[in-house]
Parts: sequence; structure tokens; C-alpha cells
Amino acid sequence: MLQAPPPDSRSRARALLMGLQDSICAGLAALDGEGSFAEESWVRPEGGGGRSRVMKGGRVFEQGGVNFSEVEGDQLPPSILNQRPEAAGQRWFATGTSMVLHPRNPFVPTVHLNYRYFEAGPVWWFGGGADLTPYYPFLEDARHFHRTLKGACDAVHPAYYPVFKTWCDEYFFLKHRGETRGVGGIFYDYQDPSGTLYTGQDPSGPAAAVSSQSGAVAQNWEQLFALASACGNAFLPSYVPIVEKRHDLAYGDRERQFQLYRRGRYVEFNLVFDRGTIFGLQTNGRTESILMSLPPLVRWEYGYSAEPGSREALLTELFTRPQNWLEDPALVERCRPHQAVD
Amino acid sequence: MLQAPPPDSRSRARALLMGLQDSICAGLAALDGEGSFAEESWVRPEGGGGRSRVMKGGRVFEQGGVNFSEVEGDQLPPSILNQRPEAAGQRWFATGTSMVLHPRNPFVPTVHLNYRYFEAGPVWWFGGGADLTPYYPFLEDARHFHRTLKGACDAVHPAYYPVFKTWCDEYFFLKHRGETRGVGGIFYDYQDPSGTLYTGQDPSGPAAAVSSQSGAVAQNWEQLFALASACGNAFLPSYVPIVEKRHDLAYGDRERQFQLYRRGRYVEFNLVFDRGTIFGLQTNGRTESILMSLPPLVRWEYGYSAEPGSREALLTELFTRPQNWLEDPALVERCRPHQAVD
Repeated sequence: MLQAPPPDSRSRARALLMGLQDSICAGLAALDGEGSFAEESWVRPEGGGGRSRVMKGGRVFEQGGVNFSEVEGDQLPPSILNQRPEAAGQRWFATGTSMVLHPRNPFVPTVHLNYRYFEAGPVWWFGGGADLTPYYPFLEDARHFHRTLKGACDAVHPAYYPVFKTWCDEYFFLKHRGETRGVGGIFYDYQDPSGTLYTGQDPSGPAAAVSSQSGAVAQNWEQLFALASACGNAFLPSYVPIVEKRHDLAYGDRERQFQLYRRGRYVEFNLVFDRGTIFGLQTNGRTESILMSLPPLVRWEYGYSAEPGSREALLTELFTRPQNWLEDPALVERCRPHQAVD
Repeated sequence: MLQAPPPDSRSRARALLMGLQDSICAGLAALDGEGSFAEESWVRPEGGGGRSRVMKGGRVFEQGGVNFSEVEGDQLPPSILNQRPEAAGQRWFATGTSMVLHPRNPFVPTVHLNYRYFEAGPVWWFGGGADLTPYYPFLEDARHFHRTLKGACDAVHPAYYPVFKTWCDEYFFLKHRGETRGVGGIFYDYQDPSGTLYTGQDPSGPAAAVSSQSGAVAQNWEQLFALASACGNAFLPSYVPIVEKRHDLAYGDRERQFQLYRRGRYVEFNLVFDRGTIFGLQTNGRTESILMSLPPLVRWEYGYSAEPGSREALLTELFTRPQNWLEDPALVERCRPHQAVD
């Protein structure tokens, strides 16, 4: 039997996630310098509502959205009940903050973040993560992002990062392309005190293997709340320095066209595979808020492949495959000829 | 027990569908006048292959693809076995021709066509259809398209068009937007001599009601082959006159931007709902050929809604809702103020 959450669990989760929306929006608006977030609050007929904030046409961000929502319902969708059959027939509550940023400059990566908390009768769980999708290869950006998130995870428990990093590579995977969405980051779901770190779909996958090596992790509501807090607050330090380093780099039509093309992969992932998007559409969520993750302009090109030896090829071959960003010395050798290390 | 197909069923279906690809490509290339189709043949490791033909950067067509494929496998995906449990464990064969055209001029509608034939052990069936997605409202275009397809259906059996027209509206429906993809056309699936015209997902839907009113339709392999042939051959006469009428109309940035925005709905439908796309990705199909249906350039805009009273609003309110295009006189009154009748 799962330990009950604290009596003020919902208000604490709400405060954490709304606070995260506030601090992220403030940080991003300061970084952009010109664009600002327009806010729309909305109510969901079946229960709950949210606060969507969107920046369009900023200096740094072509489009960015940071969405907070808190929704309730009578029956969770089958995709979730498969994982938590005890929640069947229970009224559920879910709150989350999610964010996707589409920068203008192709040298600045797209980034996504989502932290969420669920309760449904006797069960509750936390989920979340953040992942980075570069359009051009810079090894140091992938490393900085991972290093910062690892620091946040390690501060709560050292077993988290290796599992959540691997799980992120598994989750943000475009099966039909044989590509990860980008350089990953961390991803976790269904975290409760059962001691099971990995609850993904692939029992033979590498995340399951890393999870079983980690042994049981002492987990309770407070620790998982602390994890969401630490990782959420690590977002600005994980991403802002990358933007500052890249957003003034000169680029031309070639880089813009490649960025628009790669944005197509983002659309493919979000519409075909993304659990959050599918959950939102299945539970009659607010379509505009759910699909604010889609890029403002996108290109598809039949039969495109990057010129061998180009930076675009390096991006495709190295930065859309799972890598040990923090430790593999061979990555430096692959990136050096393209000035793609720092 | 289902009547066995003729001994040369596969070769006849193949010849029909390859011939359809040939005649459509020839007609479209002549219509475009500048663009031509580049062909790639491909082999699928699990069995079968295909012939993809793509036109990029034509005068009329910004992008168009006409794909023939013939594939085999050992186990159909669950989405199909739900409808045809007798096919479980049977080696299957599927052949089809599909086409999507994305014209350059926003006054020319996008169009899609697909005709396919399946065999799996004791069962076999035909499916297919064609549907039109305008970006600007012209009542006569919707009528011409429906009138032509109705003629093709009626020549085989008068019960077909009312069911397949309604089924098309049901199938090409974006639930999260409350919109049909466009003005529809015809759609049918799982057609065999069982006498069940409608085999869709919605037993309480209008297509089921129309189907039950139609009574049993004498069906056999030859009749269904004739249906695919008649409808397939009706494509050029259903679409070419629309292109000829619209493709020289002057347009500006407003119309282009609306076209790019509406193309986003096409992507949403194809990646979230389309059975053919999902079948292809589930059966390890050729990704580039499956996704050739995606538009070359697409735009999303958070919170967009068309100016009230504009042609863009008329398109959204009238041309993305199921309509009785051929008979409803009220449509003329709605379209007249916008010069959107002829």
C-alpha cells in the first residue's frame, strides 16, 4: 500500500509548478530582452484549467510557450491505467508545467521541459524532465545541459541521473527515423515510493538495466517533490548560458533551411509519440495550449540527406544518437574537425 | 465463408494500381507543364517494395507525390486485426496507390487519393477514396469534386456514394479541432462481399445509419475491383478542372500565410489520425514515402482565429464542416457574399 501524500500535497505541487512557470518566464523574458509573454487563463469544462504564456516574435525566441495546468477527471485514459491499474474508476487530479522554446537562430537549440504531479485515489506519482534539441552540433552545449541536470539529480540521489538520462534517450526516440529527438537530458515518470526507478515500456531496454543496477532508492513524497524542485530550478542555469553563447552567431539561408527541416522531426515526435500531447488530446485538453509546442515554421523535404562530412551530417549522425555526453572522449575527436567542441 | 478472389487477383490489383499511378502522374505532369516526377524504386527487407514518384517545385505543384507499393508480411498490426480477426497469423499481402498534392497557389486545393487491396489467408478487402482540402472557399469546386466521384460510384452501385461520402466526413475529422480536413469526398474500407458497406469505428455515427438504410449491396470481387477502377479513373476529371480554373488567380502574402497555417491541420491529421500513415510506420514502411504527404512548408500560430466575416472565416466555418454539397441550397446563400459560389 502506497504511503499517502501529505495533506497539502496538491497545493504544494501547484505552488511549485506555478512558481516554476513564473521564474522560467521571468528568466526567459530577461534573456530575450524584446519579446514578452502574453498570458491567457482558461477553464476546462470537465474540471480545472490553466495559465498559458506564449512569446511570439521575440529577439531570441521565434516562439516560446510555458504552460501551467491543473486538471481533474473521472477516468484516466487507458494509456495511463495500463501503468496504474489501481487508479481505475478513481477521480484523478493532475498538475503540470510544460515548456517548449523555438529560438530564431539555428545555432541555438530548441528545449523542452515538463514537470507534473498526479493523484488518483490511492495512487500518486511525479513525472518530468527536460531535453535539448540542437540544430547545429556543439559538444559543449550538450555537456553543459547534461552536467547541470546531473547536478540537480545528484543533489537528491545519485541513482537518478544515469537512469533518467538513459530513459530520456529511450523516450524521445523517433522509431521511424532511427533518431533521438536531440541530445536528450533527463526523463522520468510514475515515480512513487515503490522503489522502481524505471517504469518505461521496454523491459529489455538499457534504462531498465541501469535501473536494476541502481537497486532500491529510498523514495518518499518529499524526496520526489525535492527532485521536481531541483530539476525545475536547474532549467535556467542549464539553458541560458547556451543561448548567451550562440544567439549572436551569424547564420545564412543554409542554416535556416536546415533548422526548418529539423523542426519537422520535432513535429513528428510530438504528434506521433509524445505522451503529454496524446494525454492532452485524449482528455479533451485545450488544443492551442497542447499544440503550442509545435514550431512556428516548418519544412519537410522528400528524400533529403545531409552532405557527407558537413556539420549537418555531424548533427544527424552524432547528435541524434544516444551518447555518453559527460564521459566519452571519442566525442571530442568526432567534433573537433567541425569546430563543434566548444 | 468469404468467396475466394480470382486466381489472378494480385496481378490484376497490381496492374490497376500501377496503371493508376501512371495515368495520374502523366495527367499531373501535363497540367503542371514545368514540373516532372522523379521516380525512386525501393525494396522492403520484410517483403515487397514500391515505386515513389515525387514532383518538387513545379509551376502548379509546390510538391506532389504519387506512391505505389506492394508489401507482404507475417502478421498484420493489431489495428487491422481488430477489424479482421480471421487474418490473425496469416501471411498478408497489400498493394496500394496513394497521392497527395500540395499546390503553390492558395486558391488551388490540396487533394489526396488512396486505393488499396489486401489479402490475408481467407480474407481480402478493398479500401480507398479521395478527398479535397481547399484553403479558400469555392462552392463550385466542392460540388464538382463530389459530383464527379458520385458519378463514378453510381456507375457501380447507387448505394455507395451516400455511405462513402458520410464515412469520409467521419474519417477525415480532426477531433481536437472539431473540424473535417476539408470538403471530403469518398472514403471506404474493408469492402468485401459480406454486404456490410460501413465498417467504421462509430456504430452510432451517421455513416452507419446511412449504410443500414442502404440495405445489402450485392458485392463480389469484380464489383469492388470495378469500384476502385471507376473511382481511381475519376480522379483526374474531378480535380484537373479545379486547378485549371484557379491556378492563375492572383494572391498575396495574406493568402499564402493562411495556406501555410491551414497546412498545419493537414500535418495534424496525417500524424495523429491517418490509418495509412500509422499502418506504414507500424509495418516498418519506407518513411520517406509515407511522409511525402506532409507539406513542404507549414506554419503554426498559437491562438489564431480568422477575422469574422472574412473568406478565411467562411473556409473555417463552412468548408471544414460536413455539408450536403450537392443538394443544400443554403450553401449558395452563405457563399454568395464572398464571391465563393463559382
